[in-house]
Amino acid sequence: MAIPTLNLTIPALQAAYRSGSLTPAQLLDELLIRCDSYAAHNIWITRLNREQLQPYLKALAGHSPDTLPLYGVPFAVKDNIDLAAIPTTAGCAEFAYVPSEDAFVVAQLLKAGAIPLGKTNLDQFATGLVGVRSPRGACRNSFNRAYISGGSSAGSAVAVALGLVSFALGTDTAGSGRVPAAFNNIIGVKPSKGLLSTRGVVPACRSLDCVSIFAFTTDDANRVLEVAATFDVQDAYARPNRDTNRRNYGLANTPFRFAIPQDEQLNFFGNDSAQACFTATVRSLEELGGECQRVDFSAFLQAARLLYEGPWVAERRIATTGVKPQAMLPVIRNILASQQDASADDLFRAQYQLQEYNQQVQAILEHCDCLLTPTAGTLYTIAEVEADPIRLNSHLGYYTNFMNLLDCAAVAMPAGWLDNGLPFGVTLFSRAFSDTRLLSIANRLQQGLQLPLGATGQALPASQAGNTGVMDRIDVVVCGAHLQGLPLNWQLTERGGELIAKTRSAACYRLYALAGGPPFRPGMVRDEAAGTAVEVEIWRLPTAQFGSFVAGIPAPLGIGKVELADGHWYSGFICDPYALATATDITHFGGWRAYIGK
Amino acid sequence: MAIPTLNLTIPALQAAYRSGSLTPAQLLDELLIRCDSYAAHNIWITRLNREQLQPYLKALAGHSPDTLPLYGVPFAVKDNIDLAAIPTTAGCAEFAYVPSEDAFVVAQLLKAGAIPLGKTNLDQFATGLVGVRSPRGACRNSFNRAYISGGSSAGSAVAVALGLVSFALGTDTAGSGRVPAAFNNIIGVKPSKGLLSTRGVVPACRSLDCVSIFAFTTDDANRVLEVAATFDVQDAYARPNRDTNRRNYGLANTPFRFAIPQDEQLNFFGNDSAQACFTATVRSLEELGGECQRVDFSAFLQAARLLYEGPWVAERRIATTGVKPQAMLPVIRNILASQQDASADDLFRAQYQLQEYNQQVQAILEHCDCLLTPTAGTLYTIAEVEADPIRLNSHLGYYTNFMNLLDCAAVAMPAGWLDNGLPFGVTLFSRAFSDTRLLSIANRLQQGLQLPLGATGQALPASQAGNTGVMDRIDVVVCGAHLQGLPLNWQLTERGGELIAKTRSAACYRLYALAGGPPFRPGMVRDEAAGTAVEVEIWRLPTAQFGSFVAGIPAPLGIGKVELADGHWYSGFICDPYALATATDITHFGGWRAYIGK
Repeated sequence: MAIPTLNLTIPALQAAYRSGSLTPAQLLDELLIRCDSYAAHNIWITRLNREQLQPYLKALAGHSPDTLPLYGVPFAVKDNIDLAAIPTTAGCAEFAYVPSEDAFVVAQLLKAGAIPLGKTNLDQFATGLVGVRSPRGACRNSFNRAYISGGSSAGSAVAVALGLVSFALGTDTAGSGRVPAAFNNIIGVKPSKGLLSTRGVVPACRSLDCVSIFAFTTDDANRVLEVAATFDVQDAYARPNRDTNRRNYGLANTPFRFAIPQDEQLNFFGNDSAQACFTATVRSLEELGGECQRVDFSAFLQAARLLYEGPWVAERRIATTGVKPQAMLPVIRNILASQQDASADDLFRAQYQLQEYNQQVQAILEHCDCLLTPTAGTLYTIAEVEADPIRLNSHLGYYTNFMNLLDCAAVAMPAGWLDNGLPFGVTLFSRAFSDTRLLSIANRLQQGLQLPLGATGQALPASQAGNTGVMDRIDVVVCGAHLQGLPLNWQLTERGGELIAKTRSAACYRLYALAGGPPFRPGMVRDEAAGTAVEVEIWRLPTAQFGSFVAGIPAPLGIGKVELADGHWYSGFICDPYALATATDITHFGGWRAYIGK
Repeated sequence: MAIPTLNLTIPALQAAYRSGSLTPAQLLDELLIRCDSYAAHNIWITRLNREQLQPYLKALAGHSPDTLPLYGVPFAVKDNIDLAAIPTTAGCAEFAYVPSEDAFVVAQLLKAGAIPLGKTNLDQFATGLVGVRSPRGACRNSFNRAYISGGSSAGSAVAVALGLVSFALGTDTAGSGRVPAAFNNIIGVKPSKGLLSTRGVVPACRSLDCVSIFAFTTDDANRVLEVAATFDVQDAYARPNRDTNRRNYGLANTPFRFAIPQDEQLNFFGNDSAQACFTATVRSLEELGGECQRVDFSAFLQAARLLYEGPWVAERRIATTGVKPQAMLPVIRNILASQQDASADDLFRAQYQLQEYNQQVQAILEHCDCLLTPTAGTLYTIAEVEADPIRLNSHLGYYTNFMNLLDCAAVAMPAGWLDNGLPFGVTLFSRAFSDTRLLSIANRLQQGLQLPLGATGQALPASQAGNTGVMDRIDVVVCGAHLQGLPLNWQLTERGGELIAKTRSAACYRLYALAGGPPFRPGMVRDEAAGTAVEVEIWRLPTAQFGSFVAGIPAPLGIGKVELADGHWYSGFICDPYALATATDITHFGGWRAYIGK
């Protein structure tokens, strides 16, 4: 196989390794050459040389893609995340130090077989969304070097987009893991806060920081997330994974609801082409089964303003304690000097205000599977940003600044092309620990749009994800005392259950009135030879509430799978056969309501 | 029925109302007389008169205990919680206002039929744990007027203990809902933050405040909690109820694990009698089926110190903005004046530190059903506190100050008698939304200890709670491919499943090898006539994870109830009978492992 034609998605690499047509060492040789050819993009702050890469190759000995989920997969690390024995600079020479240990999240990836190519360029101290604020020089867009890469995780995104690595780590405090994904036509995952350890990462705002993931596909992003999302009890901000869909990443081929801001709350900063792209993306998502709602976006926008107009800049100041102002770029120095006189009272007041916005936001997120916005409303040239560095930077945060403050998870993804040939991206987001659901919906959209991989021109491979449905809620078929208005229905409604449909089972069930009660209960039993269609209801429950519902069901009933008239199998009531001996066959009533006369 | 002999627990009142031996109006007449007889205790700031009570009585017309869960149940409201048309003073005349609306939580109780007798005395601005810091005069202990009542929810606790009301609302920011419960031999629930609305409540520290519940029994506390815990979307700090045991309050007659601090971390401030009481309580809980562990308590104690030595006092300052210092008691004025120069930087640093402690704490809470500590290490006279107001107050917060900062739920409860005849109390606590589990364990201990009700001398009635078990985890019986080491076992381990026992079913099951696979699976079917004991394992799963486990089980299997050799029924695999027609009876192997030879 000719390496230049190989795409760097993880399944493609692993297939090549398995077939013997490629070795990790051969791949690295090729990638080092490619890196040299893109020197003008200012992607790297420190690149590993052949000698420095050797230990990582050696560690693969005796392993294969079958034993290591990221066997021989090259990746890049933003230069505010520690890689042992390589300087961490955060884009500031005076700040630099050489860590003796890998950041916890990097260590997880290395253990899984991934190979680090180097440390990438960034807006100094991860403060910026442009990729221009670096003493190393502005990181340049992978499609057109006159344009900004987006930042602050600039080099990490461009390294993926140009096919120098399969994935990369960034950080994201206010959009740094999403804006550069949008500008370089790749996936950018801002995971739920606390899901990826931030130990060994230079803080920006410590209460808000996330390690983020850039990749070509949602499949790859999900695989990296699975490896990286290891709970780190030594990270004060780490949280146990409460994602009830974990391991249910898939194509999400079920209907879903998404919401978009009202027209007047969208802002494209004069870029009509971006506006057209967004409208087209909404249409695409509808065609893929999404039901679109409009929501009031003002609480998000107000929260976003709090971040840069409020006292959170104190966190950036704490993170750079000891760094002399004159050692920083002027733009960074000026940002850090702002709000210096904020008091504890001011911060509490701002946190109260944020909490108000958060309550409004949670109510919105509760009623849909995700929100959809542009990732950024427009895209600028490096010259434009250098001429107006603060204002244009703030435009890029319009759809991103609120995310970490409001404890949302987000997936930024490619969505089309602007008139100037540069990429346009959208972001799907929802509440914390919706990561897998977001990736599943994003996968569906990515497969639907069929955009090429980053700036490589390579075609998108087919997703290898299963079709698991959107699993944050579980639909359960009830046929007896849990029907609407009947004595046990409260067990569904108090758990937030929602009636989805009144329908019938497949025509292959018998219904029995069980002995005992009250409450009186039927048993529904599959009988392909002599069954009939039984009246049932489908109720939708939050997954986290379903377990206690099941545990509360007395013998002989339980929850298994029931086939409905539509041919699909749903979770629903089944009956232990021993109880049929003392039960009365009531199949001829066609349903429990008819039998009890209600 | 002679009213004086009637205890005021909710079931007792409702039985009297149902029998016709008592009416709410008769009860109120009696209670107004009782209130007068306890005037020396300084319980009330504002008491409702007959005329003011009339509308609440009228609202009961056409209702009964069958239609209103708190029909005719008298309660008291701490005077920092709004009751419409009655002044809210927070213990400061200059601060007082007359609210036009009830606090949201009060409105829920009124809708349920409860009758407010008045507004109760408190430490000014809820700042204190003594009950002495009030212009109304020190609230006096229900057992001995020379002793403090505890605070800040002083009058609310004493009103319950003396049998003037059935329950009372307090607030709890750092122990105000627990310390007075301990000193007056009653239940004090500090619910999970955000479970009870704080809208219409004078803030102390807004990010930490909880409305709390005083009652005679855990049954009553649970009933009031069910009514009061209505999600209030207009309260910025409200959180949806994530208690997976909600509606599973019970006697908890299953084994459970509790933890206590190491000996040198306990502090009784020289009160040997309190120490003896605590040791005896630990023994009682062990005799009731609790397995006791020792844990390092230092993270809790360090968090507690942050509260009063750190910048959180800024929240109390914000809450009293506009109140002239000279309008406050000197002790309150001095507290509010501290830490005035704290900056936003200081507060972020303190919040980082808290987050470190929190991470350590969560790891401890994860491994047991609850922690057990004294509620307060000792108890002082009013004279002692007046002589040394700050230091002795801080002693009382040793076991309470960390609770709200660390987002724990807590139940304070009676646990015995000190040498001086005054009550000693303990607190059970765990992470947020463990409320029902805590109340269930507390119920078991209360029923075990059989202490009288408050200061009334009346005997504890039997609990009417069902025996539901400790339900935060669900034990599930597996008999096939989910057994340890077999192909589907990962579905349990990845959800945090823990192997509890290798055992056998009751001797009344048959085992079948189902058609299809891999994975190959058995079906276990009850057969009382010709069954045998089948080898099984019990795995314990977090309740929130159980639903997705159940939903992932393909037909014909599901989760119902299975009887084990110990005679108890557990959640476990059952099988839809249709599949038996194509299955092979393998009962004679005695278990799946023997059949597959592993």
